[in-house]
Amino acid sequence: MTEQCLFCGIVSGAVPSTKVAEDDTTFAFMDIHPGSDGHLLVIPKRHSQDLLDIPTNDLAAVTLTAQRLAKTVVNELGADGVNLLNCCGAEAWQTVFHFHLHVIPRYTNAAKDRLTLPWTPGVRGDNSTITSLGERIYRAAN
Amino acid sequence: MTEQCLFCGIVSGAVPSTKVAEDDTTFAFMDIHPGSDGHLLVIPKRHSQDLLDIPTNDLAAVTLTAQRLAKTVVNELGADGVNLLNCCGAEAWQTVFHFHLHVIPRYTNAAKDRLTLPWTPGVRGDNSTITSLGERIYRAAN
Ligand SMILES: [Zn+2]
Ligand SMILES: [Zn+2]
Repeated sequence: MTEQCLFCGIVSGAVPSTKVAEDDTTFAFMDIHPGSDGHLLVIPKRHSQDLLDIPTNDLAAVTLTAQRLAKTVVNELGADGVNLLNCCGAEAWQTVFHFHLHVIPRYTNAAKDRLTLPWTPGVRGDNSTITSLGERIYRAAN
Repeated sequence: MTEQCLFCGIVSGAVPSTKVAEDDTTFAFMDIHPGSDGHLLVIPKRHSQDLLDIPTNDLAAVTLTAQRLAKTVVNELGADGVNLLNCCGAEAWQTVFHFHLHVIPRYTNAAKDRLTLPWTPGVRGDNSTITSLGERIYRAAN
């Protein structure tokens, strides 16, 4: 637990939330700024700031809880699709610095779903830029 | 391998790609419709359609490869943040039906980054709707 971390407060119960799942490693609760009906967050109980510092076992556990809840929103809420989103860093829209994975149910019914794709779909990138960035990533990662 | 699956073709080498990482379970390559500089995709080598049917061991492996590459784009490309995104179902913007996790580097430099948040941030949802949806998810998931 980190002092003054909102999500550590939710895990401990000091801050109220609408819990949807909990196990030894993970905790899931409803997002109070939902992008769609049923939008929820899955977090590790142990504090990590973001994707760069979360231990691999916590990350795997969070992801599997998110998958389980994705199936639940499809089966129980009748969602037509689901997005998983992680925001790592303020530049990537992270606002609470305790790792969290968004589970966002999607609906053909626009009244339940207010999302728009974050980038312009179908725009072909520049081949030489893509290849050269890919080569840099490959060399650095392998 | 599924006949006519584009990403199975990339794994097999029948379809060219700019590979950035590969291990026994996962394969990662550059997205040719990038939302930002360095946008890449991580997939399981074994075909799964989407988040609802991918086996848990493949899902965990894909996520850990994505984390490793998120660190790489921060360290090597100087990204200021990273988004992970999965699109499950056509309604959630899935267009290739072989599970894939987007790793999207983010930059303060707008020339490298063309993304907008998919929902309106900071809009407080209706409390009673959130609570009642949360209770339905909780009962169905636990
Ligand atoms: Zn915390
Ligand atoms: Zn496939």
